[in-house]
Amino acid sequence: MSELIDRLRAGLPAEAVVVDPAVTAAYRHDTAGFCAAGQPAALVFPRTVEEVRHVLRTATGLRVPVVPQGARTGLSGGANAVAGCILLSLLKMDRILELDPVNRIAVVEPGVVNAALSRAAEAHGLAYPPDPSSWESCTIGGNIGTGAGGLCCVKYGVTSEYVLGLDVVLADGRLLRTGRRTAKGVAGYDLTRLFVGSEGTLGVVVGAVLALRPAPAPQLALVAEFGSTGAACAAVNAVTEAGFTPSLMELMDSVMVRAVNRYGNMGLPESTAALLMVAFDGPERLRELAAVAELCTAAGATEVVPAEDQAESELLLQARRLALTAMDALGTTMVDDVAVPRSRMAEMLAGVAAIGERCGLTIGVCCHAGDGNTHPIVVFDAGDPEQVARAKDSFEQIMALGLELGGTITGEHGVGLLKREWLARELGPVGLELQKQMKGLFDPLGILNPGKLF
Amino acid sequence: MSELIDRLRAGLPAEAVVVDPAVTAAYRHDTAGFCAAGQPAALVFPRTVEEVRHVLRTATGLRVPVVPQGARTGLSGGANAVAGCILLSLLKMDRILELDPVNRIAVVEPGVVNAALSRAAEAHGLAYPPDPSSWESCTIGGNIGTGAGGLCCVKYGVTSEYVLGLDVVLADGRLLRTGRRTAKGVAGYDLTRLFVGSEGTLGVVVGAVLALRPAPAPQLALVAEFGSTGAACAAVNAVTEAGFTPSLMELMDSVMVRAVNRYGNMGLPESTAALLMVAFDGPERLRELAAVAELCTAAGATEVVPAEDQAESELLLQARRLALTAMDALGTTMVDDVAVPRSRMAEMLAGVAAIGERCGLTIGVCCHAGDGNTHPIVVFDAGDPEQVARAKDSFEQIMALGLELGGTITGEHGVGLLKREWLARELGPVGLELQKQMKGLFDPLGILNPGKLF
Repeated sequence: MSELIDRLRAGLPAEAVVVDPAVTAAYRHDTAGFCAAGQPAALVFPRTVEEVRHVLRTATGLRVPVVPQGARTGLSGGANAVAGCILLSLLKMDRILELDPVNRIAVVEPGVVNAALSRAAEAHGLAYPPDPSSWESCTIGGNIGTGAGGLCCVKYGVTSEYVLGLDVVLADGRLLRTGRRTAKGVAGYDLTRLFVGSEGTLGVVVGAVLALRPAPAPQLALVAEFGSTGAACAAVNAVTEAGFTPSLMELMDSVMVRAVNRYGNMGLPESTAALLMVAFDGPERLRELAAVAELCTAAGATEVVPAEDQAESELLLQARRLALTAMDALGTTMVDDVAVPRSRMAEMLAGVAAIGERCGLTIGVCCHAGDGNTHPIVVFDAGDPEQVARAKDSFEQIMALGLELGGTITGEHGVGLLKREWLARELGPVGLELQKQMKGLFDPLGILNPGKLF
Repeated sequence: MSELIDRLRAGLPAEAVVVDPAVTAAYRHDTAGFCAAGQPAALVFPRTVEEVRHVLRTATGLRVPVVPQGARTGLSGGANAVAGCILLSLLKMDRILELDPVNRIAVVEPGVVNAALSRAAEAHGLAYPPDPSSWESCTIGGNIGTGAGGLCCVKYGVTSEYVLGLDVVLADGRLLRTGRRTAKGVAGYDLTRLFVGSEGTLGVVVGAVLALRPAPAPQLALVAEFGSTGAACAAVNAVTEAGFTPSLMELMDSVMVRAVNRYGNMGLPESTAALLMVAFDGPERLRELAAVAELCTAAGATEVVPAEDQAESELLLQARRLALTAMDALGTTMVDDVAVPRSRMAEMLAGVAAIGERCGLTIGVCCHAGDGNTHPIVVFDAGDPEQVARAKDSFEQIMALGLELGGTITGEHGVGLLKREWLARELGPVGLELQKQMKGLFDPLGILNPGKLF
């Protein structure tokens, strides 16, 4: 048995250190395509902060890389193993330590599943808004690592808005406490937000103080069909410009609509070029939906169907939730995550369609339209190297287009392995240099999730 | 003429470099008490990013400290001159470069006055929520530097929630662009939020992309009187626990109520021990106000007076806005800014009253009660050294109490010179060391606002 394993076992229960490749294999990858994963030296499941500190001290002592992971639902390879690393799974640290309705905060361990927190909050009339598609399985630690978003963001914002304070084990095993438990606070630099979205490259989050909010009323939705994505985007802009803030505003292009229809038997109109879903959860939602229906019609909607009630609204939103699964049924998929200024989403969608045509590939797009956050999903045959090459090429073209339109290469999925080269392009030389120096400051030996981000 | 002045004038118009001590004297201080200010070598008023870069290159070349300033309404000495420094006033960079209702963003220079942006946004049906008391004169750059809050935060959050991207001139004159123009984005570390609240110690903000939101409806308010601060705090907790999110929830203790009455002839009941103001701006505000009135009564309010209309609501809120001015009329004041978990505000207020008694000083408190952010205002005779010593002592005791209750030494005013020693206590050794390293990374020569924060 190697020195690494011996040392790990000196501070962890025997069952918390796994070396069997048959077991570790399942933990080598997150959900991203096209991302390499190395062979880990060990997979560990600490249950306490002290155990995590032991792992990091060991890693620093032996100069062994550490890859922190949650539920591995990420889409950028950020949680993939690197050769000889310690895979540090936080799944067993899954306790909700506090849930405080007066202060509207939750104190959690990183392995708490997003849905578990959401349900616990609900029991107190509260909500934890960030709702990535994987919310039934993804962890809060993973959400913090990637800066996760979701469907709710157009009204309720992203993960970083809800993280008040963190406990972080640093590369050398020191414990850092950032932020606060109070609603406001400006004491020193905002290290809390520096860790949100840092993909495990600066430290290992072992605890979080999260802000909660009162649970909103159930959403009421409408669906509008358009003859072009441009018309649907014009409707989105009209809704924003008129001062409405829907609780959800999602757009699917024709490829996506047909895929969802086929997969889920949803009975959506196959002829539609773009489907827009808009929901409101405020006390004036009926009035707001009616006004948005008119704006959609004015923007050229061929049909506008408001849900009759709660149940029908849920059914409509089902279709959106099926998007990724439905595309997966068509072949291997590669999910992109380019966000552009809302006003330029029409150009983005037209550009993606042109890229699909040029590359001879099926690319379906769903968007968090209220945020200008597009998810082009490229479908290809992973067994055909030439198609794989074209798929990769289309993916690059999509990111280039996003940057051209004043956007970002990642709205909510993160950089991981998948978009490293593109991060450099987005940041430019000054930003890139500073970010690398920042990394060097927190992780001078380069053992924390090496090769991710940069 | 010194080499510094010659070099500055080589890249700035003659009128933009001021050395006359009669002029510079007015720029040496912000609004904080008890904070030393040195004699600046020069006061500069750049109008362009290139001019700011020239100033920073010059400063780096000659190893001269640079103190960036906005309107100097800060309350922690953060903008005070240090001996021999370049005072870098951003007041002349005051253009709103874009105001975009579809993308709901504003692009501004740092010298734009908060109220000017708010009014420009209003003309488009939009709002820039952060509203520090000094909003009629303070600048966006200053708001970003301090991470400013205000009365709106209980519902709309603080400055950091509204800063999407920044242009920053680094210590050596390089230009860094952080963040984005999109609603979402997670490409790399969140440097944007690192600069918010960094008090000019990491770089000079020369441009900002800000998020706007739809303008809310006018607020409707009620005032409730209580026989004790404890009862008023119980009402605050009850309101939160019941799931309400007022657009404003402010508390004044008896000292403050009497001061405001005397100063503004407000006709408030002098016998009251605590006055709570609660407002709502949503479509259900009448129903919400009625429910809150009941919660106040249940918590022991001796009287609850709902405003009849908009105008009466404004009048009620006037009293709160007078708080600091009214206390200033009683003597020299020292404004504290301790935020505690909302549930512990009653203990904080009781503790502050006890401190006032022990120190034999008048201390009035107003609170952004919805945020647990208290502003104890210590009144003393600046001509009496013994009273000054007692005032300082009470100030320290107040911060110690805040930390004891799980709070922070600064909710929204920042650290500046005033709370340097206390920042170290709040952060602890690991946090302090990392923050200092961060400072060293951005400012290796230590020329950016030296002596502030640490």
